[in-house]
Amino acid sequence: MCKDLAVALVVQKYGGSSVATAERIRRVAERIVETKKQGHDVVVVCSAMGDTTDELLDLAEQVTDAPPAREMDMLLTSGERISNALVAMAIHALGEEARSFSGSQAGIITTGAHGTAKIIDVTPGRLREALDEGTIVLVAGFQGVSQDSKDVTTLGRGGSDTTAVALAAALKADVCEIYTDVDGIFSADPRIVSDAQKLDQISYEEMLEMAACGSKVLMLRCVEYARRYNVPVHVRSSYTDKIGTTVFGSMEDIPVEQAILTGVAHDRSEAKVTVVALPDEPGYAAKVFRAVADAEINIDMVLQNISKVDTGKTDITFTCPKTDLARAVEILTARQDEIGFAEILSDSEIGKVSLVGAGMKSHPGVTATFCEALANAGVNIDLISTSEIRISVLVRDTELDEAVQVLHKAFDLGGDEAAVVHGGTGR
Amino acid sequence: MCKDLAVALVVQKYGGSSVATAERIRRVAERIVETKKQGHDVVVVCSAMGDTTDELLDLAEQVTDAPPAREMDMLLTSGERISNALVAMAIHALGEEARSFSGSQAGIITTGAHGTAKIIDVTPGRLREALDEGTIVLVAGFQGVSQDSKDVTTLGRGGSDTTAVALAAALKADVCEIYTDVDGIFSADPRIVSDAQKLDQISYEEMLEMAACGSKVLMLRCVEYARRYNVPVHVRSSYTDKIGTTVFGSMEDIPVEQAILTGVAHDRSEAKVTVVALPDEPGYAAKVFRAVADAEINIDMVLQNISKVDTGKTDITFTCPKTDLARAVEILTARQDEIGFAEILSDSEIGKVSLVGAGMKSHPGVTATFCEALANAGVNIDLISTSEIRISVLVRDTELDEAVQVLHKAFDLGGDEAAVVHGGTGR
Repeated sequence: MCKDLAVALVVQKYGGSSVATAERIRRVAERIVETKKQGHDVVVVCSAMGDTTDELLDLAEQVTDAPPAREMDMLLTSGERISNALVAMAIHALGEEARSFSGSQAGIITTGAHGTAKIIDVTPGRLREALDEGTIVLVAGFQGVSQDSKDVTTLGRGGSDTTAVALAAALKADVCEIYTDVDGIFSADPRIVSDAQKLDQISYEEMLEMAACGSKVLMLRCVEYARRYNVPVHVRSSYTDKIGTTVFGSMEDIPVEQAILTGVAHDRSEAKVTVVALPDEPGYAAKVFRAVADAEINIDMVLQNISKVDTGKTDITFTCPKTDLARAVEILTARQDEIGFAEILSDSEIGKVSLVGAGMKSHPGVTATFCEALANAGVNIDLISTSEIRISVLVRDTELDEAVQVLHKAFDLGGDEAAVVHGGTGR
Repeated sequence: MCKDLAVALVVQKYGGSSVATAERIRRVAERIVETKKQGHDVVVVCSAMGDTTDELLDLAEQVTDAPPAREMDMLLTSGERISNALVAMAIHALGEEARSFSGSQAGIITTGAHGTAKIIDVTPGRLREALDEGTIVLVAGFQGVSQDSKDVTTLGRGGSDTTAVALAAALKADVCEIYTDVDGIFSADPRIVSDAQKLDQISYEEMLEMAACGSKVLMLRCVEYARRYNVPVHVRSSYTDKIGTTVFGSMEDIPVEQAILTGVAHDRSEAKVTVVALPDEPGYAAKVFRAVADAEINIDMVLQNISKVDTGKTDITFTCPKTDLARAVEILTARQDEIGFAEILSDSEIGKVSLVGAGMKSHPGVTATFCEALANAGVNIDLISTSEIRISVLVRDTELDEAVQVLHKAFDLGGDEAAVVHGGTGR
């Protein structure tokens, strides 16, 4: 083959909505073949078609209400095999060679934690061989094979993105393109803020904070993986040819003249728990968090204020997923005597709004502006938590949209054109 | 574990209709657990649920009209992974341990012929290990992994039966139970002959002839495999607890006092081609069959009668699948000059009726009775072909049912009770 340009290796990931129908599959195939025809080697990772995963979950539920995790993984991984085989067929129909591989065949080696396996190693020998033969390679996302038992595993939510980034790292790809139903990473959710701006570039650290604070475009684990292996991730729309957002580089690489703040993220998925009048002595807070951790409930924000005068007691507040709230309260209540608190308060009608930006470090006054903007809009702040490049607060869930809007405006994050919103998300 | 009885190893295979819904899956699980509780080790092979395979084929067709065979296998094999994982879940819900394995994990090593792979070897190390731990083992039927490319392969029609028999052979199982929607092997199709009798036992050779002549309960390849490895196959209904039919032993093992004839089989799937006025010299018939074989069309019956006086020409008639008829005629017509025949006649409105029985060898007069029975019913015989234990004739397709009925009656094959007919078949 004669190529004018140096051959690049491109990993592309397509979400479930991008491959939901035969027609969309053919469109995705066209884009893949186009990339190949530009002279690049192409590795593609597809999620399961549209609602396939939900349908399989529903089937399992009809059979039993406590399916073993190993079998759940065997069941769910079939969804990605189906979509990847179909995309391979569509590529063939366009005259290019394509071969689909399961996670196991692709050498995605994981821990044995079914449903939430972590990638330990990637041994892409078979993929490399296929690429060397000029074939387009497809890999079923979201799945791997456990190192010890050789059983089929799944990587949990957003797993296909992680598969794509892990393959890009192992194959030393030039870029990992994540095709999704939005045009890129925005300065806020375009469904809430009409002039939300698409970002051209964002550092790994900022993207991590955005993902941790509720931005759903990329999952936290995928960004962590990309950062560790320095894989440039290009988030873009599968419906247009527009350039999206590149996640790359550390905060230090971002030119100083660029906007000091990246965006506003929000999250409706959390609930708040307050443990009231806990003895303010070493070990008592640990007892609370051990109890919650034992139940495998993830804690996000934690706040402990100073002791109330003369009582020797303090209150601890934390947030956890709404879906785990009832269980968290139940577990703590069961250990009330042992832990020694007065009562448990819980609140699921909250929302979290966060401002993220690497420039925050060097620009004083951000916190003041943040609080003033919310106060002027009459939004009450329930709880504040910050990191070096982030400020997060809890507010009433009914006031969350307004909080996002006023912060976005106060920090002048808006662009010139209105953002385009498509429906549906992939896995 | 304390067991009163010697532990047996039982392989059970369930067809697609037996696992078509969550409710049926739970029922199948109950039967499996019951076998386990009797103290046996159990290996289960399930087909894909109900119409899953057709739905996947339909999806592929929507994407392209020429799907590559490798990807087709990747696509279709997901159906069996789904059903086997669900059955494993249902078994768990009943309190027994169960683990599902893909064909590749189960060590089903095949040729690389996608869509029609043959089993080369079975290396059931992981299954044996799981059995030794007291676990019920499930294996996705119809699939394996190619020895050379390590790609996923499928075994073609009836593949799950072959998987079950191959596992039974490799694991030295005491019996391979094939659960289906009929009560066993019958002396004729119960939908045509109301007093068709369920056979208690049938030899491998007789079963091979029955399968080759259109009996659809067991596929030819599965019986060949069972015979080669001497695996007793028990064909029975998944809807009842009744004993079915055991396929076992050679013709010589069948007691002499048993019925001399086994049953009447019929086949509507074939068409007839006659090559008229072919030179009756060495090599001309070979040219005809080479042309058909090159097109990968299977020939069943072949008949060449003596030359017509003085012409030096002869007619050759053969049968092939109806679905290949047009292609066969086209291929032969294209080579008419080269082969040197006068014309091609074809007829797809035919049916084949066969009488099978080991006793035929030692009982003269069977052919005479056979022809008399059809003549008395006014059924015209178009073509006759025999083996040591079989007589087959072609008749008009409109007269096929009657031919089956009168032969069944003439050889007194009927039982006392009417046969029960269920709907649907598995893969």
